[in-house]
Amino acid sequence: MSTLIRDVDVRNYRVPLPKVLCDAKHGTHTHFEIVTVTVRLADGSTGTGYTYTGGRGGQSIATLIELDLAPGLVGKDAADIEGIYDWMEWHLHYVGRGGIVAFATSAVDIALWDAKAKREGLPLWKLVGGDSPECNAYYGGIDLAYTLDELVDSIKQRLDLGFQGVKIKVGQPTLAQDLERVEAIRNLVGPDIRFMVDANYSMSVEGAIEAAKAFRAYDLMWFEEPTLPDLYHAYARIGRESGMPLAMGENLHTLHEFGYAFEQANLSFIQPDASNCGGITSWLRVAEMSKAHDIPVCSHGMHELHVSLVASQPHGGWMEWHSFPIDEYSTLPITLRDGKAVASDEPGIGVAFDWKKLKPYLASQKVISEPS
Amino acid sequence: MSTLIRDVDVRNYRVPLPKVLCDAKHGTHTHFEIVTVTVRLADGSTGTGYTYTGGRGGQSIATLIELDLAPGLVGKDAADIEGIYDWMEWHLHYVGRGGIVAFATSAVDIALWDAKAKREGLPLWKLVGGDSPECNAYYGGIDLAYTLDELVDSIKQRLDLGFQGVKIKVGQPTLAQDLERVEAIRNLVGPDIRFMVDANYSMSVEGAIEAAKAFRAYDLMWFEEPTLPDLYHAYARIGRESGMPLAMGENLHTLHEFGYAFEQANLSFIQPDASNCGGITSWLRVAEMSKAHDIPVCSHGMHELHVSLVASQPHGGWMEWHSFPIDEYSTLPITLRDGKAVASDEPGIGVAFDWKKLKPYLASQKVISEPS
Ligand SMILES: [Mg+2]
Ligand SMILES: [Mg+2]
Repeated sequence: MSTLIRDVDVRNYRVPLPKVLCDAKHGTHTHFEIVTVTVRLADGSTGTGYTYTGGRGGQSIATLIELDLAPGLVGKDAADIEGIYDWMEWHLHYVGRGGIVAFATSAVDIALWDAKAKREGLPLWKLVGGDSPECNAYYGGIDLAYTLDELVDSIKQRLDLGFQGVKIKVGQPTLAQDLERVEAIRNLVGPDIRFMVDANYSMSVEGAIEAAKAFRAYDLMWFEEPTLPDLYHAYARIGRESGMPLAMGENLHTLHEFGYAFEQANLSFIQPDASNCGGITSWLRVAEMSKAHDIPVCSHGMHELHVSLVASQPHGGWMEWHSFPIDEYSTLPITLRDGKAVASDEPGIGVAFDWKKLKPYLASQKVISEPS
Repeated sequence: MSTLIRDVDVRNYRVPLPKVLCDAKHGTHTHFEIVTVTVRLADGSTGTGYTYTGGRGGQSIATLIELDLAPGLVGKDAADIEGIYDWMEWHLHYVGRGGIVAFATSAVDIALWDAKAKREGLPLWKLVGGDSPECNAYYGGIDLAYTLDELVDSIKQRLDLGFQGVKIKVGQPTLAQDLERVEAIRNLVGPDIRFMVDANYSMSVEGAIEAAKAFRAYDLMWFEEPTLPDLYHAYARIGRESGMPLAMGENLHTLHEFGYAFEQANLSFIQPDASNCGGITSWLRVAEMSKAHDIPVCSHGMHELHVSLVASQPHGGWMEWHSFPIDEYSTLPITLRDGKAVASDEPGIGVAFDWKKLKPYLASQKVISEPS
């Protein structure tokens, strides 16, 4: 069969950030990591998927793919995306679910979708049933450590680029400091630009309720991850007691976790990340769940890929244009046109890595062609 | 300070099993993996912890410890077990929670407890407040693929060793086949030996209810993991509709997951595994939660370590004597005396690896002495 997997090329890149980035719970980011997976099929065609981290765990993800997934993938039919998705889930269930395993299986799943989209000659947004390459997009800053001046400057730059929405980090030592920044940014952007805040689950439930009540004065579109993503009922309480719309999803790694979030957390927006929830297959399932719950499906991270997914959904919400500039290492365009993000029209997932540009940051590479 | 961590020695061993083992959802096991972590402190003393897998993910766990934990551990105070536990949780939160990260942090946490127990000259069961080295123990077979004769033989062997409890796998193609095996084993062991079954979450909720009702005729102590560990409410329903006591825990990796299980699943027994729930620190927290819920705390896997933990708890239940013979690679004794498992009295966690015996199975080793 022409779509049998011949070999799997797994790489880990550690890419330095131009500026050290900081949020409330993940500390400082000096690098991000991109783990790429390229499957080569019997007919010579290929598909490339990837996942990313904030600088920790990338090599562990690559190792898991090299040793525990790739040998089982060799000889499987790349066209059977669902079958491989199920195989990966059960094969690694004991050392899953979620976490490193979810990052690893995501990268593989995305590679299979890339191969499929190329085979069918379609861009991802069309392949999955969308009828426009465009979606709403906002800039998401990792700017907790910025001075107020730096923060204002960075948002100004994004307004100049045409962004119609911006998000900043909160979780300063005092709520007064957070409010000072929120007020400054709302004053800067005016009433028409969408504006969100993100606490990266750094607040207690009581603290989050107090903050959410105070944020209401600034017409925020959402308050993201006020507290631990595991506390579904606490989210519902924060929303109920403050009246503030809430968002999360970047830290949900299994469909069970998304199920609990939809049923119990009373979210206004959901933000699945195809790089860590099980790939495009999982992202589309989350999108279906969100439709059933009448919630716009947004995204977290890797905008160069998510633009195609969010654009494909009738209930697509706001895509995060993330601060990790992975798109700068792709030769395909993601552009901002009249404030909307526009996906590439090329066949595939819309991301084609610039291997030459990435080369200086290669931390490991292994090509697996022996079946297990 | 004499307890500062000087270096961290991380190894992965792939140990072949004498016989291929099989259960309903993890497939065949030809090997198990032991990932060891030895911390060496400024005063020259050491502590060794470990985790294990059913043959997949071990190298990914070792890699995570080598690259993303060890450099941060060097220079930290090994006596501050809680502080390091918290640091590990937040440091790796984005690529956590649970899964590979939980296995990795477990191994480190256990190493710190081993160092502490040695420093204080106490065996683990005494260090954590126990007043006896003994606990109830049952043999847990991974025997789904055994013929009925092989199954009966293997249980006979364990009865001869003095075990007062035995567990077999269920999840055969038909319930009738499961019942045939359950009936044969109950007839073999007689009415006084405790007898349990384990489906490794292979059943649908409806299927599990039907099976649980049928199992009631055989006076089972518990029905383990009838369905997916994520489905807390489904467990409560299976228990309610069948009247069968349920057990799980080996696939719960975070304290949040244990919290949901205690609150929603209506379990009769809880089975935390210190190798994958966050180490001894987490295991003891789960034990406290189980006390508050009036549930006996049992264990899964690595009996050579869990004997000390289950024995230490006034509400300690039945310890699983697992089919992965890790204890055969320790120079310290875990013995069966009058049907009870008895822990070592030596200072430490009760496990001292026989490095020579393990040597042929060494897959990787790295010693990290440079701080990050
Ligand atoms: Mg966020
Ligand atoms: Mg079990």
